Amino acid sequence: MEIALRRGFINPSYEIYGGVSGFYDYAPLGAALKKNLEDIWRRYFVVEEGFFEISSPTISPEDVFIASGHVSNFVDPLVSCEKCGSAFRADHLISAALDIKTDGLSFKELDKLIREHKLRCPDCGGKLSEVYSYNLMFKTYIGPGRKKVGYLRPETAQGMFILFPRLYSFYRKKLPFGVAQIGKAYRNEISPRQGLIRLREFTQAEVEIFIDPKDKTHPNFSRYAEEKLRLLPQEQEDVVELTAREAVERGIVKHEFLCYYLVHTQRFLLELGIPYEKLRFRQHLREEMAHYAADCWDAEVRTQRFGWIEVVGIADRTDYDLKAHEKHSGVELRAFRQFPEPIKRRRLVLEPKMSKLGPEFKRLAGKVAEALKELPESEVERFAEQGSVEISVAEEKVTITREHAEVKEVEETITGEKFIPHVIEPSFGIDRIFYCVLENAYYQREGKNVLRLSPRLAPVKAAVFPLLNREELVKVAREIFDEVKRAGILALYDASDSIGRRYARVDEIGVPFAVTIDFDTLEDETVTIRERDSAQQVRVPRGEVAEILCDLIEGKKSFPELLS
Amino acid sequence: MEIALRRGFINPSYEIYGGVSGFYDYAPLGAALKKNLEDIWRRYFVVEEGFFEISSPTISPEDVFIASGHVSNFVDPLVSCEKCGSAFRADHLISAALDIKTDGLSFKELDKLIREHKLRCPDCGGKLSEVYSYNLMFKTYIGPGRKKVGYLRPETAQGMFILFPRLYSFYRKKLPFGVAQIGKAYRNEISPRQGLIRLREFTQAEVEIFIDPKDKTHPNFSRYAEEKLRLLPQEQEDVVELTAREAVERGIVKHEFLCYYLVHTQRFLLELGIPYEKLRFRQHLREEMAHYAADCWDAEVRTQRFGWIEVVGIADRTDYDLKAHEKHSGVELRAFRQFPEPIKRRRLVLEPKMSKLGPEFKRLAGKVAEALKELPESEVERFAEQGSVEISVAEEKVTITREHAEVKEVEETITGEKFIPHVIEPSFGIDRIFYCVLENAYYQREGKNVLRLSPRLAPVKAAVFPLLNREELVKVAREIFDEVKRAGILALYDASDSIGRRYARVDEIGVPFAVTIDFDTLEDETVTIRERDSAQQVRVPRGEVAEILCDLIEGKKSFPELLS
Repeated sequence: MEIALRRGFINPSYEIYGGVSGFYDYAPLGAALKKNLEDIWRRYFVVEEGFFEISSPTISPEDVFIASGHVSNFVDPLVSCEKCGSAFRADHLISAALDIKTDGLSFKELDKLIREHKLRCPDCGGKLSEVYSYNLMFKTYIGPGRKKVGYLRPETAQGMFILFPRLYSFYRKKLPFGVAQIGKAYRNEISPRQGLIRLREFTQAEVEIFIDPKDKTHPNFSRYAEEKLRLLPQEQEDVVELTAREAVERGIVKHEFLCYYLVHTQRFLLELGIPYEKLRFRQHLREEMAHYAADCWDAEVRTQRFGWIEVVGIADRTDYDLKAHEKHSGVELRAFRQFPEPIKRRRLVLEPKMSKLGPEFKRLAGKVAEALKELPESEVERFAEQGSVEISVAEEKVTITREHAEVKEVEETITGEKFIPHVIEPSFGIDRIFYCVLENAYYQREGKNVLRLSPRLAPVKAAVFPLLNREELVKVAREIFDEVKRAGILALYDASDSIGRRYARVDEIGVPFAVTIDFDTLEDETVTIRERDSAQQVRVPRGEVAEILCDLIEGKKSFPELLS
Repeated sequence: MEIALRRGFINPSYEIYGGVSGFYDYAPLGAALKKNLEDIWRRYFVVEEGFFEISSPTISPEDVFIASGHVSNFVDPLVSCEKCGSAFRADHLISAALDIKTDGLSFKELDKLIREHKLRCPDCGGKLSEVYSYNLMFKTYIGPGRKKVGYLRPETAQGMFILFPRLYSFYRKKLPFGVAQIGKAYRNEISPRQGLIRLREFTQAEVEIFIDPKDKTHPNFSRYAEEKLRLLPQEQEDVVELTAREAVERGIVKHEFLCYYLVHTQRFLLELGIPYEKLRFRQHLREEMAHYAADCWDAEVRTQRFGWIEVVGIADRTDYDLKAHEKHSGVELRAFRQFPEPIKRRRLVLEPKMSKLGPEFKRLAGKVAEALKELPESEVERFAEQGSVEISVAEEKVTITREHAEVKEVEETITGEKFIPHVIEPSFGIDRIFYCVLENAYYQREGKNVLRLSPRLAPVKAAVFPLLNREELVKVAREIFDEVKRAGILALYDASDSIGRRYARVDEIGVPFAVTIDFDTLEDETVTIRERDSAQQVRVPRGEVAEILCDLIEGKKSFPELLS
């Protein structure tokens, strides 16, 4: 972390104004690393999966979060001091003061504990207020006045759920399909502390995959069936290592679709340099799982500084979200399932007798006829038995008898049915993954700091050094630097201090390749490329530098290949 | 726009909840296009320029925008109806009602016009309130309670200015250096209408280049000196076409540094497919230019739908921003300028006599001595004349006479001086550029819609088609589709309808290359690649498809080369 701060990866925001906790800047190297991390994520979860990304606003009108439940449930229990005004999370305050677990306690129970134990303000000893509900969404108003409440989204997911009708037709009405979003999300924490681990403004990368609840197999599961996973199932204390196939067969992971994304997520995290043995998938405990979720697993990484931290959540959210938005908006959020064969069935319908309806109901006659045709089958059956039915037409009650309509049996062909899709959601906390990547990349070699970031992840891909700061070398080095940049490679140029110190400086920020221009370059038009991890060097023609670097960075060529 | 909506580029946000004006979603194709546009921008303004990107939070504490002036000046004149409560921009309401120009009128003058002409609410005819100031920033509170006001940033720039001390040392204390940021910015418009042109939440890409005000030449200006620009200088009615060199020599563009970025911006916009003749650079009028700006040019694009619209602003912001933050934060935001030669000068200093100070001031003696050594030169001169001076030490006033200290003349060597850098800022409205790109890419060919987007910009790079939906063809097509995706190419697969209709569908969304697997493929292991713009086809070995597509997309190979 010290290097991350000193060498320009991250820094606490608003330093010149005394800082505001819960906000971090991605400084030059950090922003580049984060961007690379996101691009690798895109390769895994957008391009390779054949999904698309969307981008929805960070401000949403209140309706969205009333429907999603965030307005009522996205809350923390708060107490404030009646003397000094400081606010505390009630559960944290109690567990610190009484050394007890407070998970799952209700607001009332928390309040009772405070009264019973006569707990006081930890800052000033003042009296504490009642425990009250504090919503963690940042609130604002859209447009002038206070008529239209808006919230900063607490997750990117809702922006995708409410687009379902558009997305469904974009994907030509075929399930399953996935949609992804990388973007800012917000959580107005009471007093965030742990650096990048708990931010008020953070970056999420989420995928929502809409599937038919009748089929939770995954078409490509066989590809991943024999991959091993370190699983920590519900109510178990130790990690078990199982293949994906075993995990599903034993019913530990509920179904293939979820398990496919456990493996896919693991592959992604391994590519970022997180070691397999520092990674586990923990199933949510029953009390921890959202009431609607069918199953939920967190990918956790063991860190030196914070212990095990959750970096990804992979959940089967069932039809909860679409159902909630359908109900609240009144707009149908359904897919259509074709039957393998069209189904023929007979059913009773009412056929209105227009010759009777016309004279009797006059201008309402048409509407009465409509209503009779659309009468639910159960009502038609009752009519068949009892001979009359009462219906409402244009706010008038109307009684219909056998005089007005006749019961008929018809045969109809049904080709399919509508249903609300289920949603599988892998949700990534980019800032936390960023932290884990940095922590794992760092090591010491001969007393010097090295960041072992893969060429794809490394914020700066190449350094260009003239061996000495002499005009004839600088001229060539500058030309090569320009060529490298024009090839789209983020590079740095450095001509000060000894070459050894310059290598050390770029090793510390994870630059995988350093190009050095020396006096031989002036003779034979070759330069050296040094690889960070092996510290080995190879001479290559100067005209090919940019192309060779491109190939090395994209993994089309490996450094050992270059040596041989 | 109709195609953009129908084919999944953009759509108005929150449709299922009735919509909220000023917010748009980037739908699947739009999000991919926007991402590509941003990546091209990064190539031009980050990688090639040797700058770095940072990423700062979108929520900032009040201090930042008090200092920047946004709290007092980022306002629109508002009137609201006392009957129906609707709010209107006073200047727009007046200019619509009276058909007059209202630019530059004060709030008082606007109010007077409303009274004089007895203007009423356009919605209900009710009485209008006084004209009042409406701040366009979205406001929120950070943490519980209302103690800490936060605003959603109206521009990304401030996040870079306040990082100056960190950035200056990251760039090893050398000017000029640049820093870039792509991110969301917010403007709580009163009643936004024009789609992507005026959004409440939008994406900016800004660069802040910190330079020494004594040197506004650009090291690489010569590269661009002969490039032509279409300029519309202040107070002129017609565009003049000049080379960059001419524009600077004639004093039309104030200096090389600014002019370099006019050309660089133009190159970027041309690469996106904006035609040269639809592009102009308009200098801000005197009354329009921010009072602190030394010069400011907008890049404008002529659109079919909205006429000329501003898409980029390129300004010399002088030292305004750093000065304001230095003043408000009390933290020095300065760079150091080395003199060509160190300067020697003599000056008067006070030398404390410790033998006298000790007994007289006891425990304060050390502090008194410190204070005397640091006394400003003007005070020392007064002491030399008058023989005494009063100083404050640890909140006590102390009188110092010749008994306590002696005036000495010393010679010092000054190697340089501190100064506040000036800032050159190219600022891009990504959403507006996105709109212009789409409008310009669209054309009709033989009655069919085609989007002529470059392979780099195109949201989907390749389509994979089996000629017919037959198992043997589908199998190979699926394999190739997987290979293409694994090479990191965003591609789509389509097997329905005739091949002609599929070509038409992908032409309409700008897919540059379509790969077709036909019966020959099964014989000789070749497939066809069809180019969108020429509609020409070439047969290539199926094993090389992914690599050839990569080369075509990155511009390493051209389609005509492939044909020959």
